[in-house]
Amino acid sequence: MTTPIGIAVVGAGYWGPNLVRNFQGSPAFRLRWLCDLDVERARRVLGGYSTVQVTADLDEVLADPEVQAVAIATPAGTHLPVALAALRAGKHVLVEKPLAATYEEGRQLVEEADRRGLTLMCDHTYCYTPAVLRIRELLRSGELGELHFLDSVRINLGLVQRDIDVVWDLAPHDLSILDFVLPDAVRPVAVAAHGADGIGAGRACVAYLTLELSNGAIAHIHVNWLSPVKIRTTIVGGSKRTLVWDDLNPSQRVAIYDRGVDVASPEELGDEQRRDILVSYRSGDMVAPALTEREALRTMVDEYARAITSGEPALTDGRSGLRVLEILQAASRSLAEGGTMIKLDEGHMA
Amino acid sequence: MTTPIGIAVVGAGYWGPNLVRNFQGSPAFRLRWLCDLDVERARRVLGGYSTVQVTADLDEVLADPEVQAVAIATPAGTHLPVALAALRAGKHVLVEKPLAATYEEGRQLVEEADRRGLTLMCDHTYCYTPAVLRIRELLRSGELGELHFLDSVRINLGLVQRDIDVVWDLAPHDLSILDFVLPDAVRPVAVAAHGADGIGAGRACVAYLTLELSNGAIAHIHVNWLSPVKIRTTIVGGSKRTLVWDDLNPSQRVAIYDRGVDVASPEELGDEQRRDILVSYRSGDMVAPALTEREALRTMVDEYARAITSGEPALTDGRSGLRVLEILQAASRSLAEGGTMIKLDEGHMA
Amino acid sequence: MTTPIGIAVVGAGYWGPNLVRNFQGSPAFRLRWLCDLDVERARRVLGGYSTVQVTADLDEVLADPEVQAVAIATPAGTHLPVALAALRAGKHVLVEKPLAATYEEGRQLVEEADRRGLTLMCDHTYCYTPAVLRIRELLRSGELGELHFLDSVRINLGLVQRDIDVVWDLAPHDLSILDFVLPDAVRPVAVAAHGADGIGAGRACVAYLTLELSNGAIAHIHVNWLSPVKIRTTIVGGSKRTLVWDDLNPSQRVAIYDRGVDVASPEELGDEQRRDILVSYRSGDMVAPALTEREALRTMVDEYARAITSGEPALTDGRSGLRVLEILQAASRSLAEGGTMIKLDEGHMA
Amino acid sequence: MTTPIGIAVVGAGYWGPNLVRNFQGSPAFRLRWLCDLDVERARRVLGGYSTVQVTADLDEVLADPEVQAVAIATPAGTHLPVALAALRAGKHVLVEKPLAATYEEGRQLVEEADRRGLTLMCDHTYCYTPAVLRIRELLRSGELGELHFLDSVRINLGLVQRDIDVVWDLAPHDLSILDFVLPDAVRPVAVAAHGADGIGAGRACVAYLTLELSNGAIAHIHVNWLSPVKIRTTIVGGSKRTLVWDDLNPSQRVAIYDRGVDVASPEELGDEQRRDILVSYRSGDMVAPALTEREALRTMVDEYARAITSGEPALTDGRSGLRVLEILQAASRSLAEGGTMIKLDEGHMA
Repeated sequence: MTTPIGIAVVGAGYWGPNLVRNFQGSPAFRLRWLCDLDVERARRVLGGYSTVQVTADLDEVLADPEVQAVAIATPAGTHLPVALAALRAGKHVLVEKPLAATYEEGRQLVEEADRRGLTLMCDHTYCYTPAVLRIRELLRSGELGELHFLDSVRINLGLVQRDIDVVWDLAPHDLSILDFVLPDAVRPVAVAAHGADGIGAGRACVAYLTLELSNGAIAHIHVNWLSPVKIRTTIVGGSKRTLVWDDLNPSQRVAIYDRGVDVASPEELGDEQRRDILVSYRSGDMVAPALTEREALRTMVDEYARAITSGEPALTDGRSGLRVLEILQAASRSLAEGGTMIKLDEGHMA
Repeated sequence: MTTPIGIAVVGAGYWGPNLVRNFQGSPAFRLRWLCDLDVERARRVLGGYSTVQVTADLDEVLADPEVQAVAIATPAGTHLPVALAALRAGKHVLVEKPLAATYEEGRQLVEEADRRGLTLMCDHTYCYTPAVLRIRELLRSGELGELHFLDSVRINLGLVQRDIDVVWDLAPHDLSILDFVLPDAVRPVAVAAHGADGIGAGRACVAYLTLELSNGAIAHIHVNWLSPVKIRTTIVGGSKRTLVWDDLNPSQRVAIYDRGVDVASPEELGDEQRRDILVSYRSGDMVAPALTEREALRTMVDEYARAITSGEPALTDGRSGLRVLEILQAASRSLAEGGTMIKLDEGHMA
Repeated sequence: MTTPIGIAVVGAGYWGPNLVRNFQGSPAFRLRWLCDLDVERARRVLGGYSTVQVTADLDEVLADPEVQAVAIATPAGTHLPVALAALRAGKHVLVEKPLAATYEEGRQLVEEADRRGLTLMCDHTYCYTPAVLRIRELLRSGELGELHFLDSVRINLGLVQRDIDVVWDLAPHDLSILDFVLPDAVRPVAVAAHGADGIGAGRACVAYLTLELSNGAIAHIHVNWLSPVKIRTTIVGGSKRTLVWDDLNPSQRVAIYDRGVDVASPEELGDEQRRDILVSYRSGDMVAPALTEREALRTMVDEYARAITSGEPALTDGRSGLRVLEILQAASRSLAEGGTMIKLDEGHMA
Repeated sequence: MTTPIGIAVVGAGYWGPNLVRNFQGSPAFRLRWLCDLDVERARRVLGGYSTVQVTADLDEVLADPEVQAVAIATPAGTHLPVALAALRAGKHVLVEKPLAATYEEGRQLVEEADRRGLTLMCDHTYCYTPAVLRIRELLRSGELGELHFLDSVRINLGLVQRDIDVVWDLAPHDLSILDFVLPDAVRPVAVAAHGADGIGAGRACVAYLTLELSNGAIAHIHVNWLSPVKIRTTIVGGSKRTLVWDDLNPSQRVAIYDRGVDVASPEELGDEQRRDILVSYRSGDMVAPALTEREALRTMVDEYARAITSGEPALTDGRSGLRVLEILQAASRSLAEGGTMIKLDEGHMA
């Protein structure tokens, strides 16, 4: 076994403790520091029995030669300076989603990491759930057939955030999943967003994103901070099978339906009038595959180690974080313009 | 007890048998005829033990002086001529949703009925479910507070129709419910629609409607013919309580959550920076009220009798059918224009 | 097509209307009479548009030469005289469950039908649901492996009956299903029953039946009139697969789990101490087969026609009704004796 | 704040890590030692960043004057010697359920703790869930009315244990909950057990316990290692309300139904024949109270601290552990005797 990678976690707020726990649990890493402006908070996160060092001084962390990598879980607005400092200190960087506060800032990070040959990874945690890994496999291998629609609902009573609306808070999950599971040939080409601020919070608390995909399919995302019922369900409709992922049903998270609508191919079609009899139902079985119950963060941490060690891009590398930012930014523009469909222009960095 | 109203059902296809059964079961009506171009089909619907008369000739029905009212369950494209003929013959008219194939046709029906002082009612069946009646009561009485959002999902494997897309097939249910439960002061003012035709059926099989309401709230409808899982869930988010109606959960169709997000009123707010601490959760109880399990069609039939007898408009009268048609038509235009938000202009007939 | 079998339904109470509707819907039968001591009730059941004859006089029905068969849905206490009269009049007989009020009465019916070569069938409706037909097929074909346990829960707010306790009211369903799905080689050999009369109704309102099966497996039935939640779930645990039938989940009534516990065969076992490592999990997929949604009563009616026409015993013939009665009677004895395990003695008539 | 209580956890197997985590998280305790015969296993449990001491030598732990209390999570067969040694060393003792391997052994522990004036507590974790605490409150305060029945199902694919059957493995949860929620005046008076060993494991893998309560009510427990579906549902039927606890439904763990069956009081009853009309339904609302989501073990740890500090018995003290053992032992006897109802004799130590 090789020497573990020295790692520091920056940020001891909501997400930091999860990173601390998982890096401590991974033999590939050795956690050196937990860094937070509020040192007491960092101490509380580690608890009273820990040998991990605590500091409020990022420079102290970055100056430590035993630290080869950092994991940043600070507010999005600080991702650029913190990550840039780390990259410039020669450290590999993992950033909590979203990659940065704007597309432009995200691009700076990607370019800096490229320039220095360092790993830049975005912690799109959901991509590493056993369910999403399976969806990716089924969709990219063609087992579901061609994608027709993807519908994602992520609603709950959520903390109304000071800086960001519900789109920037929750949709990164769905957008990163979409980016992760789509076959390479299929890409989002436009997005429209509708939202409402029912409670006078000054920002959208309920929002709907509609994405046009390059193959003519549609993806739709419902994010909502005001729902007393919690729903996290994604339907992936394919030409062969349709998959339903219910993240709140541990005994049956993924269900694959061999049911659907069959349409005769165009050349078989006589005339328009007979169309209705050429559409028929398949009423097939449903299979709920056995999935492992591995914690997604553990798999994400492994992937970070793999990317650092191999020098290859992580599955959710900086570029994937950038693609998500581009859509978020376009969605914000659409929201401001009352729902206009905004074209995406992925060309620039891909 | 007064003499029952003589009624004829026109159309023995998908919906006609339900009307036949419910008019037969109602003491307020006496079913005289079942009329269908396919007499054999009409006979099959009645079964081998019935005393009800069958005919393919609408004129024969309309000429029968014992028939005071008709119920029309023919394809939408025929609603205008059939209903017009019935009104001109002096019969009260109930029409299956949608009221007509176009807003213009619907308007002709409303005007004709007005002119003749006859009842024109639209069979918006869902409005007569115990659940929707309760939602109407709770929302209009203010028990839920002001409406923030309404989210409706109606998806299933559905028959891909020859003439109409999924919006015209399924959204009339949700739009009529919305029309029914909204307080009088709150009205839809604009609609945008996005859709996709994944299977090459020549019309949208998946669609999303977003409605702006006059109080700033949002209503959203997801209709889908391609989903192997059946979902019929509506969330009604109010400022005081949020209600979830799950039509597929007979043991708990309606759940009212006294949970939510509290925002301090603007005058209490110091500065923007403290906003996040001024939003707090209420984590209250949920109540699932005991609802009767009465068949909606039975209640609808009673309402038809009440409207005929009293001369008052039915709860779902021709005008409500017209309001639904206006939104459907605007949604179609939005769909054709790639999702533009289309203003509604309710003024003309209300 | 052959001439339909003339049939009369006797009893227009709770169950009779379902029989009326299904015999009317079947081309194999021609419904001649609905007979009930309360003629008005019978008229209400048929409704105001029916050509079927009504009478309070069973003799009039039995004297009608166009009646070849009867279906009896009167209280259990009257099954013996009504069915006996019908058999003696040369009519085939279908009896609502339970076959009779006692085992001895049921035996008289079986013997009378045997003597006269007439069909005697028990309306064990649940046996004809698509789910139970599938369970029977899977269990008898060996696809589930050897039966280890069967656990059935049938609870709801139920009408507290005047004459019978919850065991006689509800357990016939579960016992007839058990009788129906078991492989021929496996039979119940003993039963114990525990119950309670929480509400002072004078009879058990909650009861648990435990059956020992001839292969060492266990079957357990929970019936309950006092539960505000409705549960109808049966788990069939086999050595290869385990099946769960949730009758209240229309989208997934039957689920077959390829999960379980593997035990090494005895000869492979070293010593007792290593047993714990010889038991391992299989964490396989779950399959929910597509089932038709045919009404069970329709299939039951078809089976009645098949039995009458072919002269072969119905799948749920008098003997199966008798086996259920034997267990019910033994359960009552066990209940009275505080839960003693009562041996069953199936030999006498099988 | 007072000085934290020095604590040692003994046993680093399945349950030990949970105790370690919760004692570390509690300000009332200071974790001094983790003791396990397998020191490497103990080290793995603590992880590579811990300051807690590890040892295989119980005597070393008991000799440490900074240790005032121990928590024992070793196999049940070792509870007696380990706990006895700890008590004799003057330490307070918390024991994982069951209290001991036999009633006799459990009694020795209770007596030893009594003699020395030390706290002896049994870790009946489920009793400290917010749901069970609420059930206790509702049942003991009379809000549910008098108890009619309690039905508990705890089934899942479970590890077939080497030493114990499914009754000893799982039923302690249900029996301790029963003991915890019952009003003082209502006690189990007899128990019968039925079981089966479908897979040839040499011990019952499926079992049903029926308990007679002193007020005539019935309690029933289904425990099962062979079920591929996981169910953890308890129904508490009272004369006023019925409560359903579904531990696997985080959004609605407890539901209280104001529905039920009303029976007229005996004096109002005319004669037996009219009984059926004197039983009527109440079809009231259901309320799902908002429960906190506090980890049960955290509350249990607090209660241990409270008991030690105050010198008062813990809510789940040694005596409650003993009452559970008495029932387990009687259930085993019943199982061996084929289901005989075994009288309980609570008198001896209560």
